[in-house]
Amino acid sequence: MYNLISWFDIIGTIVFAISGALAAGRKDMDIFGVIVLATVTAIGGGTLRDLVLGATPVFWIEHSYYLAIIAASAIATVYLHRSRIFHQKILLYADALGLATFTIIGFDKAFAITQQYEIAIMMAVMTAVVGGMIRDVLASEVPLVLRKEVYASASFFGACLYAGMLHLSLDNALAAGIAMLVVLILRLLALRLGVSLPIFSSDEKN
Amino acid sequence: MYNLISWFDIIGTIVFAISGALAAGRKDMDIFGVIVLATVTAIGGGTLRDLVLGATPVFWIEHSYYLAIIAASAIATVYLHRSRIFHQKILLYADALGLATFTIIGFDKAFAITQQYEIAIMMAVMTAVVGGMIRDVLASEVPLVLRKEVYASASFFGACLYAGMLHLSLDNALAAGIAMLVVLILRLLALRLGVSLPIFSSDEKN
Amino acid sequence: MYNLISWFDIIGTIVFAISGALAAGRKDMDIFGVIVLATVTAIGGGTLRDLVLGATPVFWIEHSYYLAIIAASAIATVYLHRSRIFHQKILLYADALGLATFTIIGFDKAFAITQQYEIAIMMAVMTAVVGGMIRDVLASEVPLVLRKEVYASASFFGACLYAGMLHLSLDNALAAGIAMLVVLILRLLALRLGVSLPIFSSDEKN
Repeated sequence: MYNLISWFDIIGTIVFAISGALAAGRKDMDIFGVIVLATVTAIGGGTLRDLVLGATPVFWIEHSYYLAIIAASAIATVYLHRSRIFHQKILLYADALGLATFTIIGFDKAFAITQQYEIAIMMAVMTAVVGGMIRDVLASEVPLVLRKEVYASASFFGACLYAGMLHLSLDNALAAGIAMLVVLILRLLALRLGVSLPIFSSDEKN
Repeated sequence: MYNLISWFDIIGTIVFAISGALAAGRKDMDIFGVIVLATVTAIGGGTLRDLVLGATPVFWIEHSYYLAIIAASAIATVYLHRSRIFHQKILLYADALGLATFTIIGFDKAFAITQQYEIAIMMAVMTAVVGGMIRDVLASEVPLVLRKEVYASASFFGACLYAGMLHLSLDNALAAGIAMLVVLILRLLALRLGVSLPIFSSDEKN
Repeated sequence: MYNLISWFDIIGTIVFAISGALAAGRKDMDIFGVIVLATVTAIGGGTLRDLVLGATPVFWIEHSYYLAIIAASAIATVYLHRSRIFHQKILLYADALGLATFTIIGFDKAFAITQQYEIAIMMAVMTAVVGGMIRDVLASEVPLVLRKEVYASASFFGACLYAGMLHLSLDNALAAGIAMLVVLILRLLALRLGVSLPIFSSDEKN
């Protein structure tokens, strides 16, 4: 299972990098901007997680192949973004897989350090969604993840389920597999059915 | 006094979380966005303070009741934001109390680690205002605190006064009480009189 | 050489602070906003570098003269921004010198800690450009550095060259001098010729 998660981690890194590069393209950024947005989208969540946990130097300092994968993905996006492999549907599926994988990886790292379920759940969601939030802030937009769709909540639900299964002493690899599958299914169902969380509209002004 | 500050800290956390949740409501965010904005507003300043001081894991990792308080405040805001207790005036008073409290807590933590007055003053203001700045950035607005009103400057003045009193070996609890009172009075006076700091308008273009 | 770099570091800090203060002026911020934007522009890059490297407390905690220099520069900008010394051309030259200096300083600090060329190059560019990016985010703009001009790429090219020369065991001071000169020349040439990196415009929507 963990060997598999390493592969999913690389897929997730690639697809998050691509989503950053495409966002940069929508804002007419130059190649440097493309690489920066690819980088923050792919490693932003894990970086913030490591910083608040005090797990420094952060993960990509010691495993610098992340940066190479991201740079390659960003450059490939510039040249290939009209090709078949960048089909919207494929990207959304791969993104959902990245979401599920980063959730589990974030949970495991935080739980190993803090031994607290609630912190690990928060760090799981943070690992999965903060990169996309920074991407949107740099593109001067209100982060999409704050506004609609079952995205962060799929990660949150999967992390809670994972915590519950670990608490019941289920086999770690099995629990990780089930939790990832649940995140994936929730995310893909939401995409297919167009489900969003309810919106909160306050009319306060201050 | 310090027992009292713990209570004020909880009040400040609640009211900062509410201000984040209301900002999310003005931008039509979903419940996840509401919780994220509540969280960054309430703990963003203290988190950045702990990161730059190297005091990791950051404070809310070890005291995870902060997260529970924030989540409860955010959800309560969604359901109760039209009720009496969310009266504008009450929120502004509670916010001023939070500003005063976070100033003193930030100063104390930074001074204990660095023993430098100027760093402690900077960290005091950072603890008090950075959460609100991140809230506004995520809501895609120029942070209000950078643009008007005596807000950060009330915190700054209180922190300087506190530093001066500690330097003169005044009793710590007494000094904290006086400094907090000064921040509160400055902030409430500014609200009542509609005072703002002078604006700097440059006509440079580059 | 290193004595010289210390002087250049101070010049870079001053001119980055001024650029932050001027950006605040364009957005009609108050004096507090001016100081905040000056501060994040001048020390934002080095702070993020130190955080991800785990080199905390960050550099300006131990050398608090940075904060004094920045505050003085910000206030001077408010009062003197119409005077001769704020001539556009002088600021651009000083900014290029800051870019070159921060690149070398960032590289050296990261390489001393990680002994990895690719990480040191990334940290060099990060030290030089992240401050300006945070400045633009706080001013609610898409960061200029992501969109045009040979700016980050001059820093990147200089850092790669520096890494190459160190790898070939060239004298450290000499290598630093050459690399800085190259960054400076690239940046000034780009300004004079109006050269930009190619733009990536994707027509994807998602």
